[in-house]
Amino acid sequence: MTLLQELQSLLGPAHVLAGEDAEPYVLDWRRRYRGRALAVARPGSTEEVAAVVRLCRRHGAPVVPQGGNTGLCGGATPDDSGTAIILSTARLNRVRAIDTANDTITVEAGCVLQAVQDAAEQAGRLFPLSLAAEGSCTIGGNLATNAGGTQVLRYGNARELALGLEVVTAEGEIWEGLRGLRKDNTGYDLRDLYIGSEGTLGVITAATLKLYPLPVARCTALLTVASVEDAVELLGRARAGFGASLTGFELMAADCLHAVVRLFPQQRLPFEGASLQAPWFALLELSDSESETHARERFEAVLGAAIEDGLVGDAAIAENLAQSQALWHLRESIPLAEAELGKAVKHDVSIPISSIAHFVRVTNAELQTHFAGVRHVIFGHLGDGNLHYNVARGAGQTEADLLALQPAIYDVVHRSVQAHSGSISAEHGVGQLKRDELPRYKSAVELALMKRIKSALDPEGLMNPGKVLQAG
Amino acid sequence: MTLLQELQSLLGPAHVLAGEDAEPYVLDWRRRYRGRALAVARPGSTEEVAAVVRLCRRHGAPVVPQGGNTGLCGGATPDDSGTAIILSTARLNRVRAIDTANDTITVEAGCVLQAVQDAAEQAGRLFPLSLAAEGSCTIGGNLATNAGGTQVLRYGNARELALGLEVVTAEGEIWEGLRGLRKDNTGYDLRDLYIGSEGTLGVITAATLKLYPLPVARCTALLTVASVEDAVELLGRARAGFGASLTGFELMAADCLHAVVRLFPQQRLPFEGASLQAPWFALLELSDSESETHARERFEAVLGAAIEDGLVGDAAIAENLAQSQALWHLRESIPLAEAELGKAVKHDVSIPISSIAHFVRVTNAELQTHFAGVRHVIFGHLGDGNLHYNVARGAGQTEADLLALQPAIYDVVHRSVQAHSGSISAEHGVGQLKRDELPRYKSAVELALMKRIKSALDPEGLMNPGKVLQAG
Repeated sequence: MTLLQELQSLLGPAHVLAGEDAEPYVLDWRRRYRGRALAVARPGSTEEVAAVVRLCRRHGAPVVPQGGNTGLCGGATPDDSGTAIILSTARLNRVRAIDTANDTITVEAGCVLQAVQDAAEQAGRLFPLSLAAEGSCTIGGNLATNAGGTQVLRYGNARELALGLEVVTAEGEIWEGLRGLRKDNTGYDLRDLYIGSEGTLGVITAATLKLYPLPVARCTALLTVASVEDAVELLGRARAGFGASLTGFELMAADCLHAVVRLFPQQRLPFEGASLQAPWFALLELSDSESETHARERFEAVLGAAIEDGLVGDAAIAENLAQSQALWHLRESIPLAEAELGKAVKHDVSIPISSIAHFVRVTNAELQTHFAGVRHVIFGHLGDGNLHYNVARGAGQTEADLLALQPAIYDVVHRSVQAHSGSISAEHGVGQLKRDELPRYKSAVELALMKRIKSALDPEGLMNPGKVLQAG
Repeated sequence: MTLLQELQSLLGPAHVLAGEDAEPYVLDWRRRYRGRALAVARPGSTEEVAAVVRLCRRHGAPVVPQGGNTGLCGGATPDDSGTAIILSTARLNRVRAIDTANDTITVEAGCVLQAVQDAAEQAGRLFPLSLAAEGSCTIGGNLATNAGGTQVLRYGNARELALGLEVVTAEGEIWEGLRGLRKDNTGYDLRDLYIGSEGTLGVITAATLKLYPLPVARCTALLTVASVEDAVELLGRARAGFGASLTGFELMAADCLHAVVRLFPQQRLPFEGASLQAPWFALLELSDSESETHARERFEAVLGAAIEDGLVGDAAIAENLAQSQALWHLRESIPLAEAELGKAVKHDVSIPISSIAHFVRVTNAELQTHFAGVRHVIFGHLGDGNLHYNVARGAGQTEADLLALQPAIYDVVHRSVQAHSGSISAEHGVGQLKRDELPRYKSAVELALMKRIKSALDPEGLMNPGKVLQAG
C-alpha cells in the first residue's frame, strides 16, 4: 500500500486531507510561506499520532507537525517537495484533567490557547499565557515554539508554565512525561528540550501546565513617556514598587498608536493636547491578590511619584474593565494596523534591559544613515527586554523598495542585536525564516551541540526537516 | 608525559592534589561514599577547565566535576578505580558582573551560594535560592543538580533562576551561553539540558542568574496543624490570599521539632500546653513589597481566618527578625537533629499536592505493617509538594537493624511514590544513590532518550561516569 492508503486505513479517509482540502495547511496565515504536502493527517489520539509517525518513517516521509498555523517563522509549513505529511493536532483537543488542589491542568496539544484559559477560569484559576493569536493558536504550538506574550515578566514563557509533557518521539514511541510536580530531579530535562524545538525532535501531544490564583483586581494605565530611557527607569520603579503584582509592561512608539487610531476610527487615544504628541507610550498592568481598593491605591502611589519626578508625562488610568480592555485593545491592534501600512521588515529581538535604550538609539540612527526616511514601528514587551523592532517604508518609498532592502536591514539590526548581547529571536522561534541567520549569530560550538541533539533524537532527519537547522 | 605531569605543567603543582591532599575530595560530606582519584585538578579559569578536560580525554581519564562537595547522592564522588580526575571548581569563584538594571548577576561556578546571595544583597537585590548547605555549596553544584530549597514555591528551582550558562563540553570546548535575556528562542534549550545533568554532559563554569527586588518586609509564623490534610488546605488559602507574596510553606512532623529542642536545648518551641502536643507544624513566610504594616495586616487576616475555621490550632507569629530567624532555625536544624538520632532511611520525594496527604497516610500505614515501630521523620517543602520522607529506627531497634531494612523500605516508599504520580528524587538528584533505582520508575522510552543524549554529548563516556546513568 502507498503511504496515503495506509494513512487512510489508519485514520479513516475523512481524516486524511489532500488537494483543495489541504490548501489551508500548506500556506501560513501571513501568506509568506507556501509549501506542498502529500497529505494532511489528522490523528485523533496520541496512539494515532505515534502510528502516523511510524508509518511516515517506514515510507521515509517527512513529518511536519502543525497546530493553529499561526506561527510567524514558517515553522509549520512544509517545503515544496510535496513529500511531507502535515500532522495536524486539531483533533487532539481535550482537556484531560484539572486539579485545583495541585494547581495544574492537563490538556492535549490541539487545544486552542483561549480554550485552556477558559477552562482554567471556569475552575477559578488563571492560566496566564496570553498573546495576540490566542483565539486560534494551540497550546502544542505554543510549547513547540516556547511562546511568550504579554504576561511573561510575571509568569514566564510557555516553558516556565509547563510541568510535564507527553511526546511522540521521532521513532513513533510515546514518552509519557505528564508530571504535575514542581520538583523532579530524576534525570535529563527532556521536557525543556522538546519545548522550543519546533517539532524537529518529536511531536508534543499533551502537557500538564501550571495554574495560578485568579487576581482579585487589575489596574491598567496608558502613560506618555519622553524616551526609552525614561521607560526603562519607570520599569525599574514598577518592579520595585509592585513586586510580583506587575503583570504587564508594554512600550509602544507613537507611530504605532497613531496608525491604530487612524485605521480603526472607533479606537482613540485617551489623551488630549500635547500628550498626543508624546514620542512613546507605556501600558502598565498590575494584578492584585487583595482588593480593588488596595490595587488602586498602590497603582496610584507609584504612578503619582513617577509623574511628580517627571518620568511620566500624562497618565490615563482605566476606571473599569471596559476601559482597561480598550487600552489593551490599542496595544493588540498594532500588528493589524502595521499590516495596513504595508509589509514591514520585522524583527523580534530581545536585549538586556540595561542596554535596550542604547540599542534603540544607535540602531535607529544607523538605519537612517543607510536607509534614510524609513519609519521605526517599535513596540513590545519592555518588561522582558523584548521589542518588535519593525521597519516600515517612509514617505515616497514603495513596498517593493522596502522589501528590496530587507536583507540589508536585517543585517544592520541583527548585528546591532549581537553587539548588545541580545537575541535575534526572542519569542517567535526560528522556523525557516531565521534558520540561515542562526549560524551567523551563534557560535560553532553551540550549533554543533544542537546538531548532535538533532541526530541523536531524530537520526533519520524526518521530523520537520529544514526548520531551526538546515536539513541533512 | 603522564596525565599527572601534564596537569601539573598546565595548572602548576600547587593546583594538582594527590594522596592526603586529595582526601577531602574523595569522601562525600555525609561519609556515605568514598572513591579514589588519580588527582584533584583545581583550574583557575574556564580556559584551564577546558584544557583539563581535553587532557583527560587524550588520556582516557574520567572527569568528576566537584563544587562544594555537599551533594546528597554521591554525584561528586568518583568510583574506586582510581583513574578519575576530580575537577574542583573551587578557584572559579569570581562574581563577574552585576547588572541591577537588567536584574542579573554573572558568577563563576565555584562561588559559594551564600557569596552570591551576599553580592546580590549588597547591590540591593535578592538572589532567592536558599538551602541548608548555602554556606558551603557552590552555585555550579546547585545548577548541576537543579537545587531546590525553601523559596521554590515563589521563585522556582535553580533551573528557573538561570538565564544563561558557560559550559565546558565533554570535548573540552567552551560553550559561551551567558545570556542575560528573559526571552531567547533561537534553538534547542541547551541551558536546561546541562542544568540538572550532574556533570555527566559537561562542566558548568559560569552562569547568569536572575535577581529580584529585596522584599520590604517579611512575616514568619509557626503554626500547629492537626493533619496533613489541614496543612494542604491552609496552603491553598495562603496561595489564594498571599499570591506571589507567599515565599515559604514548610511542613514538619512533631517528632522532627521535638528532636531539635531535645538535642539543642538553646532552641525552644514557641508554644505551651496542648499546642506542644500537636502532630504537625507548619512554617509560613510572607514577603511583602509594600510595608511592614501592610505585610502584618495581610498575614494576620489570613491566619486569623484559618484559626477561626479550625484549620490552625495555635500560631506563633514572629515579632521581629530575631524571632523569625529562630523559627527558621528550628526548621533548618532538623537534618542535624536527625543525624543525632542515628542514620535514617531517607527519601526526597515529590507528590502532586492534591495527593500528598493520601500519600503520607497510606505510606505510613504500610511501613508500620511491614516494619512495625519505625518512626516517621517527615518534613519538607509542602508548598512544592516536596517531602523529606525519612524513616528512623523505633524503640528497641538498632541502627544496624534499620539499615538492614533499607532496601525494603526504599521499595515500599518508592512504589507508593510511583502510585501517587510522584518523583523519587525531588531536589537532590540521582548521583550514584538512585542511579539503579531509576530504571524501575522511569519508562524504557525515557531512559533510552536520556542515553541517546548522553552518547551524543559525551560520546566517550568520560564525564562523571556512573552517575545518573550506568556507565558504558
